Amino acid sequence: MKVMQKVNPILLGGEWLPSQCAETFHAYNPATGQPLSEEYPVSGWADCDAALKAAASAAVALRAVSGDQIGQFLTRFAERLEHRKGELVEQAHLETALAKTPRLADVELPRTINQLRQGAAAAAEGSWALPTIDTKANIRSWFEPIGPVVVVGPNNFPFAFNGASGGDFVAAIAAGNPVIAKAHPLHPGTSRLLAEEAHASVVDAGLPAGTVQLLYRMPPECGLRLVADHRVGATAFTGSRAAGMALKAAADKAGKPIYLEMSSVNPVIILPGALAERGQAVAEEFAASSLLGGGQFCTNPGFVMLFDGRATEQFVTAVKEKFESAPQSQLFSAGVARSLSESVRSLRASGAIAVTGDSGVAVAECRGANWLLRASGEQFLAAPGELQREAFGTAALLIVVRDARQAADIINHLEGSLTGCIYSDTNGSDDAVYGELAPLLQQRVGRLLNDKMPTGVAVSPAMNHGGPYPSTGHPGFTAVGIPASLRRFAALRCYDNVRSARLPVALRNPQPNGRMWRFIDGRFTQADA
Amino acid sequence: MKVMQKVNPILLGGEWLPSQCAETFHAYNPATGQPLSEEYPVSGWADCDAALKAAASAAVALRAVSGDQIGQFLTRFAERLEHRKGELVEQAHLETALAKTPRLADVELPRTINQLRQGAAAAAEGSWALPTIDTKANIRSWFEPIGPVVVVGPNNFPFAFNGASGGDFVAAIAAGNPVIAKAHPLHPGTSRLLAEEAHASVVDAGLPAGTVQLLYRMPPECGLRLVADHRVGATAFTGSRAAGMALKAAADKAGKPIYLEMSSVNPVIILPGALAERGQAVAEEFAASSLLGGGQFCTNPGFVMLFDGRATEQFVTAVKEKFESAPQSQLFSAGVARSLSESVRSLRASGAIAVTGDSGVAVAECRGANWLLRASGEQFLAAPGELQREAFGTAALLIVVRDARQAADIINHLEGSLTGCIYSDTNGSDDAVYGELAPLLQQRVGRLLNDKMPTGVAVSPAMNHGGPYPSTGHPGFTAVGIPASLRRFAALRCYDNVRSARLPVALRNPQPNGRMWRFIDGRFTQADA
Repeated sequence: MKVMQKVNPILLGGEWLPSQCAETFHAYNPATGQPLSEEYPVSGWADCDAALKAAASAAVALRAVSGDQIGQFLTRFAERLEHRKGELVEQAHLETALAKTPRLADVELPRTINQLRQGAAAAAEGSWALPTIDTKANIRSWFEPIGPVVVVGPNNFPFAFNGASGGDFVAAIAAGNPVIAKAHPLHPGTSRLLAEEAHASVVDAGLPAGTVQLLYRMPPECGLRLVADHRVGATAFTGSRAAGMALKAAADKAGKPIYLEMSSVNPVIILPGALAERGQAVAEEFAASSLLGGGQFCTNPGFVMLFDGRATEQFVTAVKEKFESAPQSQLFSAGVARSLSESVRSLRASGAIAVTGDSGVAVAECRGANWLLRASGEQFLAAPGELQREAFGTAALLIVVRDARQAADIINHLEGSLTGCIYSDTNGSDDAVYGELAPLLQQRVGRLLNDKMPTGVAVSPAMNHGGPYPSTGHPGFTAVGIPASLRRFAALRCYDNVRSARLPVALRNPQPNGRMWRFIDGRFTQADA
Repeated sequence: MKVMQKVNPILLGGEWLPSQCAETFHAYNPATGQPLSEEYPVSGWADCDAALKAAASAAVALRAVSGDQIGQFLTRFAERLEHRKGELVEQAHLETALAKTPRLADVELPRTINQLRQGAAAAAEGSWALPTIDTKANIRSWFEPIGPVVVVGPNNFPFAFNGASGGDFVAAIAAGNPVIAKAHPLHPGTSRLLAEEAHASVVDAGLPAGTVQLLYRMPPECGLRLVADHRVGATAFTGSRAAGMALKAAADKAGKPIYLEMSSVNPVIILPGALAERGQAVAEEFAASSLLGGGQFCTNPGFVMLFDGRATEQFVTAVKEKFESAPQSQLFSAGVARSLSESVRSLRASGAIAVTGDSGVAVAECRGANWLLRASGEQFLAAPGELQREAFGTAALLIVVRDARQAADIINHLEGSLTGCIYSDTNGSDDAVYGELAPLLQQRVGRLLNDKMPTGVAVSPAMNHGGPYPSTGHPGFTAVGIPASLRRFAALRCYDNVRSARLPVALRNPQPNGRMWRFIDGRFTQADA
């Protein structure tokens, strides 16, 4: 184990320090398949331990920091990202091959900045903590920070879900916790730029030095040890099911909360009336949603149920044309391309036939065909496990069902997904079938949509970006949406007969900041207790 | 496996049916050590499977039942328990040896009835579900029932935490879920009476047949399989750490939420000023809390920190006298007596000396001495794991510390507890030490008390009967307190662009029942959206 000076430093306890690493890695430019020049460390346990130590100490210091001050940090960070927009977009484009515009510059970075600003407002207002006061019994409780949060970001949102700037980061910080960000190894340079601005904002806002830390990568055994460490409060993970399950087992065993967002096929049901009424429009909507970002979305519509008939065949033909006329999808890495290829192979081996996609997958170039597969309801029911395998990338499996009864049967075989959509007509001819299928579908998903593809995930207080296992680890929590996402990173703390001057200001009788919502003697109010 | 006709039936799918059991068991009268005559079945997997099947079907049917109707069930159940009070108290007294009055008749049964009535009000009002509406984006979400809930009740509250009537039962039902109650094998007769009234109330209120089911006992392997079954929504467990940990591992592996309330030593810190000001009164309060119910409370104050000095010695003497003048504690079972004896033996082997308690434990008679043990701060720090072992029963360990620094060091070695108390004087001489210790203690407990023993757990919306691992499995949830305890048994469900007539009534624009609190466009309100 030696310190390598030419390797990018890690952000540890408020300083950019050399990693105690044994190995290093490079990112790749997916568009060329060529490695990028910067070298990043693969952290060993020494780095993790140092980060945990600094985070534990920051967690204590943060308890004395007001929500206002945390809000100032998040606002400052948002401003700094705006100022560094050009460089961020360039770097993320280089590492992910996502389009600079509209995707990175006009959609994802603004979304990221919006999340930071919403988090700032929530931290300053404080209502997220559900302060609850029983004046008669003099018992008071609310959610307080849970402790250092490990945020493991995915490959598919270099800004908006980045461990050092994304939704989980904002939620953990706004709830008053330090973050140990684990960058995704496909975009370390982007993560570095984000962490630089986060760190500068920590300094600007006068927060504790260890409030934001960054590690680039670590061997799996260090990750498992990290999420189970006694100094950790909780972990947020977005990524593959295999990695998520391994981390979950380690965290569960140690009694550490872990919030996971894993795989999801996001079933879409298109009812006959909708096809008859607006089949061409639905085909366009579906193809656009499916092809977006190379299909590399957690909410990509990968599983579509259609009813046997002429309109369905027309829909299939229309989508086939769209898939074929679109360029091959640019994927994030050779690994993603390999995995897509393997998933498609497995779906085909289980009976799905390729409507289009035979141009295949070019692993070295990180490119894949836009796969449109189809199978019958009978085929699905003969191999329900195999035929709901997630194919991350542009691949959609159409299941053509005989009737509503078979559709219901199929829904009852689906694993938990983040979303489920039903398209129906506007004159009521689909209503009976909707009434049969929606209640079943709804039990399998976290978000039910009507007449709308699932790829958009609005940052709304009412959003649920969560769902039944194994799409996530617990159906009661959302990764997107403020204030709810903050409560994942909080412990309920109660004060029983505690003298007024010793209470957190938010739990004393007077309204603390003129606007905090509190649940006082059975009523939500912004007034004094 | 055969059906035994003379054995008490189980409540399955709305009928009292013979169990498919291989074994049976008896309860005991702890006051005499003699077995009671009634025979109860040890259910095998066939019973569990039948209960799961009926619960799954009830869960579907319950989705169409209004909160009002669920509230009517809970109210009816409360009324029925009032009517059957005499018999319930007799039976619980017979099986637990808890005093008929005040404990069973005047405290625990009224508390149980109060919980049912609070649950009824919460179900009918609906605010517990945090309905959240974003009118601009037309996204709406709230908490919906999670599915069948397995409730495993503990030995120490035959009514108030009974799987068929207690806090977890109320929370699960009020949130709209069917319950599979697992009775505690020490009070099957009490559980049967409660389930009879629950079942009659289900019929009265017209709820689905499988809304409440009762199993008496099962081999451990069936319990592990039950909490992990795909038809289960969640499990609530109150009991020993060993059993809780085993169930947690099984549920975690299957991705099933499980809420556990396990061990807790409930540290109490008595500061020097409090002793100087009112040492005798504090000693009386402590002894009363410690001796209550044979010390068989989850929030029994089992670990007391005092500062070395004359006032502490006076306190010790005063408590010793109380412990010695009180009768030996009546325990729930020979098993509890054995376990108490073993815990005390272990504490003494780790350096604690017995101030009093040498009358020992009479296992066959389910009786134990009132143990007062003491050790120094140094001794604790030399064996912090061993000296915070929970001794369930009347046993308290006094740790006499040198100074605040040592006290802080000790707190930092404590595992998570449900509660922590600090007694301080009223003229400010303890304030500096309070300021040092309270922030540390608070991180180790779910509820911080001032000048008050922890044994009372008010059913208040602001209560937290929860705490850091391993006192519970997740620090964000409480087992007592409405509405928060309901949200454990709920899944967040979101409706994105769903047509108004297809939305749950609570998420449509008009205020649904004149009083439901909803979070609409960033404000809590009882108005229309």
